[in-house]
Amino acid sequence: MAVDGTEQRALQYEQTLMYGRYTQELGVYAKEEAARIREDGRHRRSVSDRGPPLKLLEYEKGRCVRCRICAVHCQRFLMSRVGEDWIFLILLGLVMALVSFVMDFCIALLLQAQKWMYGGLDSNVILQYLAWVTYPVVLISFSAGFTHIVAPQAAGSGIPEMKTILRGVVLKEYLTLKTFVAKVVGLTCALGSGLPLGKEGPFVHIASLCAALLCKFMSFFGGIYENESRNIEMLAAACAVGVGCCFAAPIGGVLFSIEVTSTFFAVRNYWRGFFAATFSAFIFRVLAVWNRDEETITALFKTRFRLDFPFDLQELPAFAVIGIASGFGGALFVFLNRLIVQFMRKQKTINKFLMKKRLLYPALVTLLISTLTFPPGFGQFMAGQLTQKETLVSFFDNRTWTKQGMAEDFNYDSHSAAWKHPQANVFVILVVFIVMKFWMSALATTLPVPCGAFMPVFVIGAAFGRLVGESMAAWFPEGINTDGTIYPIVPGGYAVVGAAALSGAVTHTVSTAVIVFELTGQISHILPIMIAVILANAVAQSLQPSIYDSIIRIKKLPYLPELGWGHHEKYNIRVEDIMVRNVRYITLNSTYRDLHEILMIGNLKTVALVESAESMILLGSIERAQLQALLTQHLSRERRLEFIRDRVDAERKRVSVVSTPSSEEGGQKVNHEVRFQISTEESSFTPARPSSPKPLKPALKKTSAAEKNIEIPTSDSGIGLKNLLCARPQTDAMEEDPDAEDDMTLGEIEEWEEQQLDEQVNFNSCKIDPAPFQLVERTSLHKTHTIFSLLGLDHAYVTSIGRLIGVVSLRELRKAIEGSMTVKGVKVRPPLASFRDSGTSGTSSESEATELHKLWDRHTSISIPREHQPNASDSDDKSQ
Amino acid sequence: MAVDGTEQRALQYEQTLMYGRYTQELGVYAKEEAARIREDGRHRRSVSDRGPPLKLLEYEKGRCVRCRICAVHCQRFLMSRVGEDWIFLILLGLVMALVSFVMDFCIALLLQAQKWMYGGLDSNVILQYLAWVTYPVVLISFSAGFTHIVAPQAAGSGIPEMKTILRGVVLKEYLTLKTFVAKVVGLTCALGSGLPLGKEGPFVHIASLCAALLCKFMSFFGGIYENESRNIEMLAAACAVGVGCCFAAPIGGVLFSIEVTSTFFAVRNYWRGFFAATFSAFIFRVLAVWNRDEETITALFKTRFRLDFPFDLQELPAFAVIGIASGFGGALFVFLNRLIVQFMRKQKTINKFLMKKRLLYPALVTLLISTLTFPPGFGQFMAGQLTQKETLVSFFDNRTWTKQGMAEDFNYDSHSAAWKHPQANVFVILVVFIVMKFWMSALATTLPVPCGAFMPVFVIGAAFGRLVGESMAAWFPEGINTDGTIYPIVPGGYAVVGAAALSGAVTHTVSTAVIVFELTGQISHILPIMIAVILANAVAQSLQPSIYDSIIRIKKLPYLPELGWGHHEKYNIRVEDIMVRNVRYITLNSTYRDLHEILMIGNLKTVALVESAESMILLGSIERAQLQALLTQHLSRERRLEFIRDRVDAERKRVSVVSTPSSEEGGQKVNHEVRFQISTEESSFTPARPSSPKPLKPALKKTSAAEKNIEIPTSDSGIGLKNLLCARPQTDAMEEDPDAEDDMTLGEIEEWEEQQLDEQVNFNSCKIDPAPFQLVERTSLHKTHTIFSLLGLDHAYVTSIGRLIGVVSLRELRKAIEGSMTVKGVKVRPPLASFRDSGTSGTSSESEATELHKLWDRHTSISIPREHQPNASDSDDKSQ
Repeated sequence: MAVDGTEQRALQYEQTLMYGRYTQELGVYAKEEAARIREDGRHRRSVSDRGPPLKLLEYEKGRCVRCRICAVHCQRFLMSRVGEDWIFLILLGLVMALVSFVMDFCIALLLQAQKWMYGGLDSNVILQYLAWVTYPVVLISFSAGFTHIVAPQAAGSGIPEMKTILRGVVLKEYLTLKTFVAKVVGLTCALGSGLPLGKEGPFVHIASLCAALLCKFMSFFGGIYENESRNIEMLAAACAVGVGCCFAAPIGGVLFSIEVTSTFFAVRNYWRGFFAATFSAFIFRVLAVWNRDEETITALFKTRFRLDFPFDLQELPAFAVIGIASGFGGALFVFLNRLIVQFMRKQKTINKFLMKKRLLYPALVTLLISTLTFPPGFGQFMAGQLTQKETLVSFFDNRTWTKQGMAEDFNYDSHSAAWKHPQANVFVILVVFIVMKFWMSALATTLPVPCGAFMPVFVIGAAFGRLVGESMAAWFPEGINTDGTIYPIVPGGYAVVGAAALSGAVTHTVSTAVIVFELTGQISHILPIMIAVILANAVAQSLQPSIYDSIIRIKKLPYLPELGWGHHEKYNIRVEDIMVRNVRYITLNSTYRDLHEILMIGNLKTVALVESAESMILLGSIERAQLQALLTQHLSRERRLEFIRDRVDAERKRVSVVSTPSSEEGGQKVNHEVRFQISTEESSFTPARPSSPKPLKPALKKTSAAEKNIEIPTSDSGIGLKNLLCARPQTDAMEEDPDAEDDMTLGEIEEWEEQQLDEQVNFNSCKIDPAPFQLVERTSLHKTHTIFSLLGLDHAYVTSIGRLIGVVSLRELRKAIEGSMTVKGVKVRPPLASFRDSGTSGTSSESEATELHKLWDRHTSISIPREHQPNASDSDDKSQ
Repeated sequence: MAVDGTEQRALQYEQTLMYGRYTQELGVYAKEEAARIREDGRHRRSVSDRGPPLKLLEYEKGRCVRCRICAVHCQRFLMSRVGEDWIFLILLGLVMALVSFVMDFCIALLLQAQKWMYGGLDSNVILQYLAWVTYPVVLISFSAGFTHIVAPQAAGSGIPEMKTILRGVVLKEYLTLKTFVAKVVGLTCALGSGLPLGKEGPFVHIASLCAALLCKFMSFFGGIYENESRNIEMLAAACAVGVGCCFAAPIGGVLFSIEVTSTFFAVRNYWRGFFAATFSAFIFRVLAVWNRDEETITALFKTRFRLDFPFDLQELPAFAVIGIASGFGGALFVFLNRLIVQFMRKQKTINKFLMKKRLLYPALVTLLISTLTFPPGFGQFMAGQLTQKETLVSFFDNRTWTKQGMAEDFNYDSHSAAWKHPQANVFVILVVFIVMKFWMSALATTLPVPCGAFMPVFVIGAAFGRLVGESMAAWFPEGINTDGTIYPIVPGGYAVVGAAALSGAVTHTVSTAVIVFELTGQISHILPIMIAVILANAVAQSLQPSIYDSIIRIKKLPYLPELGWGHHEKYNIRVEDIMVRNVRYITLNSTYRDLHEILMIGNLKTVALVESAESMILLGSIERAQLQALLTQHLSRERRLEFIRDRVDAERKRVSVVSTPSSEEGGQKVNHEVRFQISTEESSFTPARPSSPKPLKPALKKTSAAEKNIEIPTSDSGIGLKNLLCARPQTDAMEEDPDAEDDMTLGEIEEWEEQQLDEQVNFNSCKIDPAPFQLVERTSLHKTHTIFSLLGLDHAYVTSIGRLIGVVSLRELRKAIEGSMTVKGVKVRPPLASFRDSGTSGTSSESEATELHKLWDRHTSISIPREHQPNASDSDDKSQ
């Protein structure tokens, strides 16, 4: 795929037609970034020691010392207050409410402008058509272009990325100011075009951007904002704010954001979401009141269903039907959306062409959709002139559109009038609307502009509900319950149920029910809505992943799939069934050659460090970069020069043994020589006076320097270890001893390097993770998944009594879960799992005991040699 | 405290006056129980291999073979279906809905009976008083007595216990059939008495009981119900069902149960709660419809506030005031409740007296409360004749009681009429009601009957809200917003806000807001309610623990306190500051004497096993019981008899060296002798043919037998190791060799035991937990708390590069959290935490490196002796 002129991102974000794709292993990148940030932060903190030292001030003399002390105290107090969570949350809520209000205002203006143009040109249909079509094409093209130029990451929903970020992966460019600007401007234009696009997903992203930027801003004031885990908690709250101020639905927002972004949820963080979302929703609605849009704070799509008898018990089957149908519909939507993306990606020639003319695809799609919705054209059969909001309002209306199966004259309302057509039935129009909007929404959400799928799906669901409701009203014009007063059927209630069910099915959430209550301001239909949403979820979850998980797979974001519902195999599969047994490791007495081999073989992120190959006792893990640095440093030009110097010294000494006694420095050099002799020839000679050829501190410094250089492609002489060691730091070696000359031939260098490779690795200057996560071999898949998703791991070592026996990474886990989740018949059940079911657990304790026995034998045979014989006999006894 | 005649519980549940208290360490008990259950389950599974083997059937011949195969297939299919989660959840929902409905029906009958008696005797006030007072006294006394006799654990709310159980602690007697019966009968009587008691907490408990019993019942059908972690997931769902069918509030139920019982919440279990609670609430309401109580499914306490203008923006400060006042009120309620319990416990003499006459305390309290509420007496000033439900209905009424500050004639409704008094103002009556009900509820919830505190608090909150609302209505008779149409103030709305806020403050939950929406069927006041609930929570959480945490502390249940809000110290405290450094451990070459000493010293539950005292590499942990078994077995009579036999053999051999060659058994005995010689005299002689003196299997069996006997107090001869080793299994030793005679004297036995104690421990027959949970020393308190509460740990070892350096248990963690959570000034901050803030992390990597260096030195010096010299020089270099 062609990569165009914009700057190459560090993360190797590959620009594709609709969604980007990552080509680099994200984990590596994330770790490096995290290390860099930590380095930066440490540096900054040590440099900026803000505020005058209080203690010193008190010793000063002068008139205004007391005032100054007071001022400093006040400043400190304010600083400490700024660090409090609730200040941050209020600020976040306030900013988001303002952003939401301003955006809504702009979107309304843009939509009004289109209507005004369209209305003004009603003399000429062709002009009208051109105006109707050009306006959205221009807006969408602008949105796509702007997003592409400023921050391509802003395209799409944003919820999949937030889900990944909250899982613990660092996707840095997703939380920058540039992305914020691109997302806000792009979303405003996209929604202003009138295409069936949503704003919920982007709002979650915008709120998270706000939170990240606020954190960055607030870190100028206090230190607490530099804490990583606190910032992640704040991001989780921000997601709730996003949904909350988008729909003025604080409770639904919190629940939806939890369901969509989290796997495990800490109840102690619950209040943050509620607090911020409530404040944000409050301000958002207060702004509407102040702007004279509303008289007081009420729901966004207020309904007026009757309270005393909202629905009959006998209507419940109809609600259940809506739920089940929505489940299938939701799965179909996700499938269709993915199909379109995959189809566009596969068509290489079209793809290439469209990648060159970036704006062509959005423009074409917009042209197609707006042509079809042109009100005097086909749009008249699908209420084309209504905006999303107007459509919803007309669906939630509590009056019936039909009576006795015939379309009534319902011209009381301009919105509902759109559903009346002289030639066509209301039912036909509703069916056309549903079918057309369905594929249009699935198509429109693939556009590279900031947009979500929630709102379009919500509208389609409402339409489907309305269709069922109107049918019911036509079927039972007098209401179902005929033994008393007549309670006619309320099709608006069906629309509410349908909206909740379909959006729940697409996003795999139950909390859409709560969102619907808060949106409509009525909770009277709680049971039908809950039943429909649960049924829709049950159907959709067994057919397709959620739209967000689908996008995660399309974008190949690093994420662990969820465990499905009620698959009992997960309790029987154990880590030992899925782990990789052939673990790469280094031991405490590995040579540099072993290091080299391990680095050459795979692309491991970390390597396990064990005590020795026989004991296999796990001591820790070392990052690849650290090992590379070790190897680089050991084979550095600098050390080679030192070696040459030593050799020269030695020769000189041999030539003039009876010359003047060597200086202090000379003496050290002798020691060097001796040391090298020892380590290469393994004699038992001990130097009289110990000396360190290289003190620890500089070595550490050099390592970090080497670490930084790792990404620079090799430009040094390609001798010995070809391309593996990327950079060899030369600078300080040259400075140290400028008069030393590199007079070794290529052969000599190669020989020297071979010699060096046989030395034992010195781990002193190497950072070791002293407690990599360990699992026991009998841990169940269920528990492993829990631990991985809670602690955000990407690999764990499997140990048995301290001995390393395997490793499990995200990849194995994902495979195992997906294996156990395939449909019946194809289920990949590890062969051992079935065997184990029938076995008693007596064997387990036995095998454990045996393992220990081996270890014990080994131990005693090594450390207490005099007991060697009896133990051998003991272990032999065993094998009888 | 006196323990009376009922059977002593295994858990050493101590009967106190109001709440029970645990005297035994629960952890130990839980583990033993778990082990027992596991043993049982294994046994049962192996015994009952249900259903005819299918494979064999197919080879059979006969006419109806095909039918039988078919039948077996069907049976299997049905069995597998029964294991599905949703079947279980539907059953649970159905059962709970039925229980809830029947209980409500009975409670209503009981309350009606009281009214009927009171109404029928209106000719004579004294008779009326006697009837009014005797009825609740009898009911409460019966409830207390019944609960006490059948299952004392049924008393109280049950939510604290469920919280503890969901944390992973096994409290077995809380989930038995007896407790279920006691709870249901007791609760019905207690609520039927008309005392201010609630049913939410008990319902949570009843639902959990239902789930546990259903699990037990269903395990007859399928194997999946034997899975421990699945059952805990089901219990979590059951808690939601409890709240859901108590208030017909599925969403609020799920959220409330999450907030109240969980610390961490797996989103994948979310749906279970929703599904079961919805189904349960649906059936519960459908039953009401079928019973002709209601026309259709609506809310329990339906309100009829106006939808178009529910409240004015300028009323919001009043709502905020309600929230803040409720916060203080909630904290006061929790404090008062605890104070009463502690006061009653301290008064030794009263306590003793009341413990003997168990029913006196409940009867006295009931007498006091019902005397005060007697309608013709003081009750006329606090609407004494209304039941809880009627009170709530009158509070939520949307008509104003006052006009222009004067009580209007509002006799339209029998319920509201209770608030009208010829002499007293409505405000006075409301204030009296609030004050009296406040202490009455706090007192009544300490009674030893099944009862909760939610509903009484809810009613008090509603009264307080009504008071504020009526005041506002009197203050602004025309409504606040005077520029347009008149919207009078709705005091019912204030009552709803107050109810949500106070119950939220007492339980420390935000989801009471959702419960209120579902209870009233209206969501129009969402923003005021959310604001009030959040403010109330903020105030209450900074003053007191929640009522449930308070009871947990009173009952001393094993629970980890929550981390407070926004205490940043938690990020700075590290495990190394709080861990216990002096860890008891055993090494691979420990002698039995070391084992003995460790067992003598403390009451550790598990002991760490390290490689050796120098290396300290952690290999695993061993339970105390296992070690005891090891020691017991090593010093058993059986082994002593063997020793005697060997000695006799040896003597015999020495006497007749040239006698007949020994038989096979004799040969083995020779080997025995040889082996013993080897292990005691440490010669280097190897036996020609290896033989096992004791095969592994029987040894294992004996261990488990010994394990079982541990709880039997020692009855054996008190020689040598006094009371430490509880039981010495004798049975199979006697069977094995009945003719061997124990002719050792006491002195000889002691000598033999001393000799045995010096032998190295043989861990072969010992179960070792191969991966006890490990932490690194630099783990933050925050993360430690997270891991402990998620994984339900009770201790974790602290390691550094595989070396054991400390241990952290729940106790240390609790101390550290409570230390960091005390009020300012008394805050216990570990001295190292402050020091660490200023230090750079450069030191950390250095120290890590040094640690490893030591390890490396040790390692090389032991395992590769020939390299000893150079390495020593290397390490000496270092120290320069």
